[in-house]
Amino acid sequence: MIVTVSRHAHFNAAHRLYNSQWDLEKNEAVFGKCTNPRYHGHNYELIVHVTGEVDPSTGYVVDMKWLSDLIKIEIEDRFDHKNLNEETEEFKELNPTAEHIAYVIWNLLRPCIPIQHQLKVSLYETPRNYVAYEGQ
Amino acid sequence: MIVTVSRHAHFNAAHRLYNSQWDLEKNEAVFGKCTNPRYHGHNYELIVHVTGEVDPSTGYVVDMKWLSDLIKIEIEDRFDHKNLNEETEEFKELNPTAEHIAYVIWNLLRPCIPIQHQLKVSLYETPRNYVAYEGQ
Amino acid sequence: MIVTVSRHAHFNAAHRLYNSQWDLEKNEAVFGKCTNPRYHGHNYELIVHVTGEVDPSTGYVVDMKWLSDLIKIEIEDRFDHKNLNEETEEFKELNPTAEHIAYVIWNLLRPCIPIQHQLKVSLYETPRNYVAYEGQ
Amino acid sequence: MIVTVSRHAHFNAAHRLYNSQWDLEKNEAVFGKCTNPRYHGHNYELIVHVTGEVDPSTGYVVDMKWLSDLIKIEIEDRFDHKNLNEETEEFKELNPTAEHIAYVIWNLLRPCIPIQHQLKVSLYETPRNYVAYEGQ
Amino acid sequence: MIVTVSRHAHFNAAHRLYNSQWDLEKNEAVFGKCTNPRYHGHNYELIVHVTGEVDPSTGYVVDMKWLSDLIKIEIEDRFDHKNLNEETEEFKELNPTAEHIAYVIWNLLRPCIPIQHQLKVSLYETPRNYVAYEGQ
Amino acid sequence: MIVTVSRHAHFNAAHRLYNSQWDLEKNEAVFGKCTNPRYHGHNYELIVHVTGEVDPSTGYVVDMKWLSDLIKIEIEDRFDHKNLNEETEEFKELNPTAEHIAYVIWNLLRPCIPIQHQLKVSLYETPRNYVAYEGQ
Repeated sequence: MIVTVSRHAHFNAAHRLYNSQWDLEKNEAVFGKCTNPRYHGHNYELIVHVTGEVDPSTGYVVDMKWLSDLIKIEIEDRFDHKNLNEETEEFKELNPTAEHIAYVIWNLLRPCIPIQHQLKVSLYETPRNYVAYEGQ
Repeated sequence: MIVTVSRHAHFNAAHRLYNSQWDLEKNEAVFGKCTNPRYHGHNYELIVHVTGEVDPSTGYVVDMKWLSDLIKIEIEDRFDHKNLNEETEEFKELNPTAEHIAYVIWNLLRPCIPIQHQLKVSLYETPRNYVAYEGQ
Repeated sequence: MIVTVSRHAHFNAAHRLYNSQWDLEKNEAVFGKCTNPRYHGHNYELIVHVTGEVDPSTGYVVDMKWLSDLIKIEIEDRFDHKNLNEETEEFKELNPTAEHIAYVIWNLLRPCIPIQHQLKVSLYETPRNYVAYEGQ
Repeated sequence: MIVTVSRHAHFNAAHRLYNSQWDLEKNEAVFGKCTNPRYHGHNYELIVHVTGEVDPSTGYVVDMKWLSDLIKIEIEDRFDHKNLNEETEEFKELNPTAEHIAYVIWNLLRPCIPIQHQLKVSLYETPRNYVAYEGQ
Repeated sequence: MIVTVSRHAHFNAAHRLYNSQWDLEKNEAVFGKCTNPRYHGHNYELIVHVTGEVDPSTGYVVDMKWLSDLIKIEIEDRFDHKNLNEETEEFKELNPTAEHIAYVIWNLLRPCIPIQHQLKVSLYETPRNYVAYEGQ
Repeated sequence: MIVTVSRHAHFNAAHRLYNSQWDLEKNEAVFGKCTNPRYHGHNYELIVHVTGEVDPSTGYVVDMKWLSDLIKIEIEDRFDHKNLNEETEEFKELNPTAEHIAYVIWNLLRPCIPIQHQLKVSLYETPRNYVAYEGQ
């Protein structure tokens, strides 16, 4: 019995989109107001999806309380109320687009998820825009 | 033309998580407050997804009115306002985790869905937790 | 400057509707399947609204972190994953309709909210049904 | 790095379900009140999903502003505040079921999306009914 | 104990905005694409709010099942899957703006609600636009 | 016929909570991580409510298209993708709590709304926290 379990989480942060190999004019041409040097921000709504065999003794793929605590420790405590560009190791060099944030979150969680389970990460940057990454 | 059609439905029920082969202490260690012997409950939001060829004469994969009635008869009438552990055949022996409830719903609906169509079931146990099962 | 601040919270619980002065037949006639003696349950979505003067030094009516902690201690810890009829003092005698639950929550919170502020409580019993009580 | 980016859009329109090769009686037997000759209508909530390699210079699969503008020009301007059966080329002959509308939208967008990217279209006809088409 | 109880309902319909005392040009100047003579449509999300004393024997302001049935009979059966301008008595002469639809619904429900209770009607025309009327 | 019409809008921005008359230690004691000097951010969901007489010739309280354009020009263009503390006149001196942002928005819109109409502003800072201000 293979089931996908999904858990919502939330953090908010400031960021700007910026490619350090381009000058400001090129950054503005590509990223528009998203490259504002004084930053803007979002409420990021995160959904973590884990797919695997249901353990017949618990009826769980993974314990949701454990998953929720894992997301808190690995993701929310790291990014919540932060400036992603200035205050995180992960986005010192990497442009914090929603695509890259989902990729970073997937890579932070992957080592903590049982090896036999699949992992997917969905991330709403606004209520109308979201991305998904599953490790490919 | 292969399309997936999805229909939301709703039921609310009481349950507790419990493995009858474990003593109370083990159940509490694993399931925490979810094993409360006097039960707790949820509004279960169910989404049934059917994937198949669109019938060129109707433009439908399946008639949504028919699908909605099927879900009412097979699922809502069976589980709505019930104590899943005590009052349903399906969870007399099976621990009513969200994973197992999705599995049971899938198996109840599968014989009623045209054989050439695929079926998937998503189930929100809370607005922040959900599971999906597609028959594997 | 008078502002209303509102905070969402969540708990889930089992309950049944029941008037102890009526026999089972009368309870069934009035409450239908909601009086099922083996209980059913809900995800209760709670919104607490506090109206008052904005403190010019903080820009807050009340600190949302404080309000959120208060709701956790006074309401979520008391009712979450509980059987309202059997396991709470508040609903030993009082029929746990949404109306009464909102009334009880209001009365639990009122002494903790600054006396000069107004308090209102909204409670979703399902995504389609909710109630509001403001102390009258 | 393969990511799916998704963008919400919205249009509202009138339609009726109707198979021109059937008489009115047959249409009513199959489509019920959805074949009302004087039309009914919906708020259509559209989600466009594009899957592809993330461009390392931008961190984008596609520019969301570009995708949003494309949906406006190709879909919203074409269908918003229209009578689908009477005022659109696409549904002159094709019965405007949600399945067919998703199929038409997919075909309108496909030539505009980079050839190496995958495209999927989800369409809510009501908050409880939706369909998805990905080109098969 | 005065409580407000609220119940969601839903119908979808076609309409156009039109003032019969103006020519087409004036209608277009005022109503834009909303006056399209071939109609457009919406999913109308209706919320009915009833405020009154809680009955101590039931714990109800009004029975939600009764309220839900009332809304079905008086409102959904009357307007669902209809062309408001052409097929309803209420909007033969009255321009079916959201404001007017809320007014009409309030007047249809008012005689059915206990005289000592207050009634308010909220109506979402789209997920981003809504109106409320309470009888003044 | 007095009706309230409500319109949703959206902007995202960076901010920090900060009282310039306090030292950093006091700011941290009061505002916690919300005073992070490098900022964090939110998706602000704004709802503007206008209450007034329905114009019998249009059936409108105000034209929603006009209201939507007004919000875009006065609010979204001013605050979207901005650092509220550093880049706006309004919050140079005023601590940008949700309470104060709602107050500022109300005061920006009030002169543009017909004098005989009432105005209220609701503002979601996160999906679980919101405030409302109506000019008192």
